Amino acid sequence: MSRMRRTIVGVMGPGDGARKLDLSRARRLGALLAREGWVVLCGGRSAGVMDAVCRGAKEAGGLTVGVLPGDDPDAASEAVDIVIVTGMGSARNAINVLSSNLVIACGMGAGTASEIALALKSDKDVILLGDHAEADAFFRSIGGKRVTVARDPDEAIAAARRLLGPPRASTPSVPA
Amino acid sequence: MSRMRRTIVGVMGPGDGARKLDLSRARRLGALLAREGWVVLCGGRSAGVMDAVCRGAKEAGGLTVGVLPGDDPDAASEAVDIVIVTGMGSARNAINVLSSNLVIACGMGAGTASEIALALKSDKDVILLGDHAEADAFFRSIGGKRVTVARDPDEAIAAARRLLGPPRASTPSVPA
Amino acid sequence: MSRMRRTIVGVMGPGDGARKLDLSRARRLGALLAREGWVVLCGGRSAGVMDAVCRGAKEAGGLTVGVLPGDDPDAASEAVDIVIVTGMGSARNAINVLSSNLVIACGMGAGTASEIALALKSDKDVILLGDHAEADAFFRSIGGKRVTVARDPDEAIAAARRLLGPPRASTPSVPA
Amino acid sequence: MSRMRRTIVGVMGPGDGARKLDLSRARRLGALLAREGWVVLCGGRSAGVMDAVCRGAKEAGGLTVGVLPGDDPDAASEAVDIVIVTGMGSARNAINVLSSNLVIACGMGAGTASEIALALKSDKDVILLGDHAEADAFFRSIGGKRVTVARDPDEAIAAARRLLGPPRASTPSVPA
Repeated sequence: MSRMRRTIVGVMGPGDGARKLDLSRARRLGALLAREGWVVLCGGRSAGVMDAVCRGAKEAGGLTVGVLPGDDPDAASEAVDIVIVTGMGSARNAINVLSSNLVIACGMGAGTASEIALALKSDKDVILLGDHAEADAFFRSIGGKRVTVARDPDEAIAAARRLLGPPRASTPSVPA
Repeated sequence: MSRMRRTIVGVMGPGDGARKLDLSRARRLGALLAREGWVVLCGGRSAGVMDAVCRGAKEAGGLTVGVLPGDDPDAASEAVDIVIVTGMGSARNAINVLSSNLVIACGMGAGTASEIALALKSDKDVILLGDHAEADAFFRSIGGKRVTVARDPDEAIAAARRLLGPPRASTPSVPA
Repeated sequence: MSRMRRTIVGVMGPGDGARKLDLSRARRLGALLAREGWVVLCGGRSAGVMDAVCRGAKEAGGLTVGVLPGDDPDAASEAVDIVIVTGMGSARNAINVLSSNLVIACGMGAGTASEIALALKSDKDVILLGDHAEADAFFRSIGGKRVTVARDPDEAIAAARRLLGPPRASTPSVPA
Repeated sequence: MSRMRRTIVGVMGPGDGARKLDLSRARRLGALLAREGWVVLCGGRSAGVMDAVCRGAKEAGGLTVGVLPGDDPDAASEAVDIVIVTGMGSARNAINVLSSNLVIACGMGAGTASEIALALKSDKDVILLGDHAEADAFFRSIGGKRVTVARDPDEAIAAARRLLGPPRASTPSVPA
């Protein structure tokens, strides 16, 4: 059996306090990631960037994984295919980044900042998609070359391609 | 957007100490679960029941999720599509059961026993597929009607159908 | 600096559904553990065996640690000195057993069963203090010599002494 | 029984990469916290700020709690009284902050940044003790009034007193 493991891109961003700009970027980002054949992983809740990036991915025919903080699967966005229920609050942020081949932050907030920091702690590459000058300066100061700043979703995808390499010639088909 | 959420059946069982009988049962179980359109979730490692149930599911065209205890994704069975990397050892057992609509234990050991107990603690139904009289008696004594004992994979699937209801008329297609 | 580490005995047992007998045993057990100079660790909630064992330990001048499943410190028993707030539900059961030099189960239920199983999984000794024949038979079948059955708190303490060795000649004083 | 719960101050900082200045500050901070009657909680490892703050606290007669990322209790600093063994890697950072009435960051790095962010996410006050201009600017931008910058350990203690209120008239005695 050839290895089945799918490439996973984690997209982190604010839930309830997300800006309209973050939501539209997340939706486009989800669609672009799905077109690359990458699985989209997020915090799973039916709110903010988590919901938007999964909707974008599903509209483009992708596969989505949501890692919920609470213990109620019904809190998941309806655009999540695979609901991972952790019941462990923000401790699940560590799972989000460990499970991702690459982390993209879309927008900024305390939860998102914790995920960027945990990603850098475990030597993951991080793409910052936003316009938060203090965040860019800080994470570059602790993350060095692991941190890439992108201005829009297309620039983020270009960076992701460089960091992950091209999609495999034949991505495995995943039947229902 | 209609709800995407896939039904997940968690299959728990011994890793390195699994018996040959447990492995052959797990493989058949994986195939039968996949044919029902259910996602197979397990502990993800390249060993024992975890590996066998994923191989069975992939051979039947299913989708597999592995929730790893360690922080190295390369420890995953090559038959796992979606590798969730927790880095939290046996604490991830709680995630395995919370993420499953139904839990099937195939074989017995300390790790498996913890997952059955955690499943009962969170009011999940559990099917015991084995021939471990002490386990059957104990888990029935604490789990009551939540616990079903099955003699073989086919009996387990029949019980799972009763507990989960029939597969939806049209399961969503999950493109690569 | 000589090593400060205190010996910790974890006492696990039902919360809301505890029997009167479990509560009286837990209270006496807490007192006896404190007299040995051992720190008492439990699930921390203001209910059942958790609350009773900490009350017993405090009445005998001991030090108590409660590892809460939720994220609200006010849910802790008032007899807990050190409240560890995990916010991770039953996943914290793994922490309870990893942090204990020895685990004593007082009473039985699904949560308690998960802690016994996790303790055996990580090669900890477990003392079963109860009168649950199915539990004794099951955990002996998977835990072998790691499992000791005790009839009452005094017998449990005698077993704990054998398993942990005698208290150190001079236990460190822990000022407030 | 009057409530036993001790006030806990979490001190977070780099492990292996800590600067000499961070270590001397952590040691003094530990001593000052102990003199206030506060329990010192840290990441528990025998390295960097974790080790230094516990040594300082013990030299001043305090009580120390270390929440280890790994599953080996022997990895704890010898200056830790109560070793909480999580076995869950950086996911334990969430426990560190949830268990602390107040968080002080001494030095900076990816792990420390994740703990500051998680503290702000759960509405805890944070004192930044360092000289990391980018960190100060960033965490103020996401944490607002929850973030206090202190120049040295004495200023940090003064801020902690304001935030926590004065020590209780009679702190409970904690016998060995």
